[in-house]
Amino acid sequence: MPKYTVTPWEVSGEIDYDKLIKEFGVKSLDDKLLKKMEKQTGELHYFLKRKIFFAHTYFDTVLEQSQKGNKFYLYTGRAPSGPVHLGHLIPWIFCKWLQDKFGATLLFQIPDEEKFLFNENLTLDDTRRWAYENILDIIAVGFDPKKTSIFLDTEYANVMYKHACRVAKKITLSTAKSTFGFTDSNNLGEIFYTSMQSVPAFLPSIMEGKPTYCLIPCAIDQQPHFFMTNDVAPKLGYPKTATILCRFLPGLQGMHREGKMSSSIDKTTIFATDKPEQVNEKINKYAFSGGKETVEQHRKEGGNPDIDVSYQYLTYFLEDSKRLKQVYDDYKSGRMLTGELKKITIEVISSFLKEHQMRREKARNSIDRFMLRG
Amino acid sequence: MPKYTVTPWEVSGEIDYDKLIKEFGVKSLDDKLLKKMEKQTGELHYFLKRKIFFAHTYFDTVLEQSQKGNKFYLYTGRAPSGPVHLGHLIPWIFCKWLQDKFGATLLFQIPDEEKFLFNENLTLDDTRRWAYENILDIIAVGFDPKKTSIFLDTEYANVMYKHACRVAKKITLSTAKSTFGFTDSNNLGEIFYTSMQSVPAFLPSIMEGKPTYCLIPCAIDQQPHFFMTNDVAPKLGYPKTATILCRFLPGLQGMHREGKMSSSIDKTTIFATDKPEQVNEKINKYAFSGGKETVEQHRKEGGNPDIDVSYQYLTYFLEDSKRLKQVYDDYKSGRMLTGELKKITIEVISSFLKEHQMRREKARNSIDRFMLRG
Repeated sequence: MPKYTVTPWEVSGEIDYDKLIKEFGVKSLDDKLLKKMEKQTGELHYFLKRKIFFAHTYFDTVLEQSQKGNKFYLYTGRAPSGPVHLGHLIPWIFCKWLQDKFGATLLFQIPDEEKFLFNENLTLDDTRRWAYENILDIIAVGFDPKKTSIFLDTEYANVMYKHACRVAKKITLSTAKSTFGFTDSNNLGEIFYTSMQSVPAFLPSIMEGKPTYCLIPCAIDQQPHFFMTNDVAPKLGYPKTATILCRFLPGLQGMHREGKMSSSIDKTTIFATDKPEQVNEKINKYAFSGGKETVEQHRKEGGNPDIDVSYQYLTYFLEDSKRLKQVYDDYKSGRMLTGELKKITIEVISSFLKEHQMRREKARNSIDRFMLRG
Repeated sequence: MPKYTVTPWEVSGEIDYDKLIKEFGVKSLDDKLLKKMEKQTGELHYFLKRKIFFAHTYFDTVLEQSQKGNKFYLYTGRAPSGPVHLGHLIPWIFCKWLQDKFGATLLFQIPDEEKFLFNENLTLDDTRRWAYENILDIIAVGFDPKKTSIFLDTEYANVMYKHACRVAKKITLSTAKSTFGFTDSNNLGEIFYTSMQSVPAFLPSIMEGKPTYCLIPCAIDQQPHFFMTNDVAPKLGYPKTATILCRFLPGLQGMHREGKMSSSIDKTTIFATDKPEQVNEKINKYAFSGGKETVEQHRKEGGNPDIDVSYQYLTYFLEDSKRLKQVYDDYKSGRMLTGELKKITIEVISSFLKEHQMRREKARNSIDRFMLRG
């Protein structure tokens, strides 16, 4: 059996998502729930149809409340330790869709101190610089400035810190150790940090002055923080927070060889600022292929799209499901060669990034409209 | 041998201060050092002459630097969990004297989150309310508003939290456990808090943009925090912080019966807002006496001023050393009865408090001149 690790600080190995659902004690996003959602949203994002978002906690409650006219907030985040890559954009794109469909206010946390505390080599100046670089990518996703507040933990500490203390008072060291595997060699900031990550889940209730639901779209590795949040929620009189959880976009070499896409591995990562030439080179050179060794063999036996990383990227970035199925069938039958599949993926991603980058440049002028400080 | 405990969160038993100096690894404030100080200050505060301030760390360094023209900051604090009593005022009075003599800027920390985190029954609203009550007493001491900044940790968190993270990154859980005796049942906020208490020791360097010394007048129970501060200081490139440490003012029942004066024991504590009638009643009724059982016996054998709490209070609040000696001699010889000694103490303290309370009322209009926020 393949081994894997999923924690807020490490994701590695080939992940068995069905097993992970059980291990984490979250629920799968089943068709019944998706139908309930569709009643309110009118349609389903292809991330949902394709099970890229595949699991949740308390999302059913949030939907029920929303059906009754009780609004909810969205909350997601970005820990700034380097440039944004394609994998980071997935929950944000979904977040924007949710914002559009539900008219929800989004709180976007940038825990600049987290990356500083957990990474020996980063200073707070480094993480702050990355924060403001990353904010361009966040704004480029297209959030509504009237309904979106972005904040750095260190810049919004006058609000965050006191509420983090209220959370921290309800979490024993013993609980933090068993949830995150902390040992006596962890530093005091690492141990405290989870309290800061809980706060935005309670800010909707604090800001509205009444119990208000919060839905967190994020990758499943962040879930342990929100278990902690929900341990604390009833003790502070807040509703439990809901999460809607996505899979990890693999690095170009595939999950089994390098795990999820990571900013620290330049070559096999496609960054939000990569130019078409870079996308072209990276995919052609590094994307793990499900093709056969020779063209003849491929034509005869067909390729394996299920392990092909270029194909997997298409499931994330090619919205046209009909075309996606065509690619799947053509590649599997051997009608489509690996080079052709890669060409399509390169086109789809380059075109996506071209538009992203245009919006990213425009974002430079609107940072202040989004920022929450003080 | 008498047993005692001295930690930032518990002070009990009859304290052997000579032993404590050795146990804590601090230095005694010896005559040689006091002479060096006198050269700069022109005179010595009676707290120094009477060894009420009796120990230090790195105070010699601060004096040397000051001699060379390198200024230092003062830093002290008040954790707000109740009303201010006479014991709290001692380091503040001394702080004001140091401010006057050295022209030093004072940073006055109000760690409102500390008392919240360490006390099950207090909310952040409670500690904030006490903070603003206590600030009146702080201002009443007479600090120079141009050279004094008072701040609540939660209100100055935009500055405090990021620097606390820099400190926290340098302290392992293991070190915090051995310094403070934390266990797995402590909450995450209690464990993080010491980082916040270190920050004001580094703020002078941060504010001045160059290494700047800091002297902390406080009761000796706070020293463990500043050992931690000095573990971290060289790692962050700051000079070691200096402390000048005082004894504990006993409760009316004496150190051996109730430990240091404590806001949680109403009857045997003299609060900064007590009226003369209350001072009169408390001292007459509860002040532990060194007198003999009968007047005849007292006249014949004399009293024991060394264990008499009223007399001890005079050493703190009667500046006139000649008169103090007279009281000592008269009481010891039996010429002075306990009632007479108590009468003097009541007069001295009531008169001190009357002036304090007048300044305290005036302070209501000048809070904003002192506060550092944002």
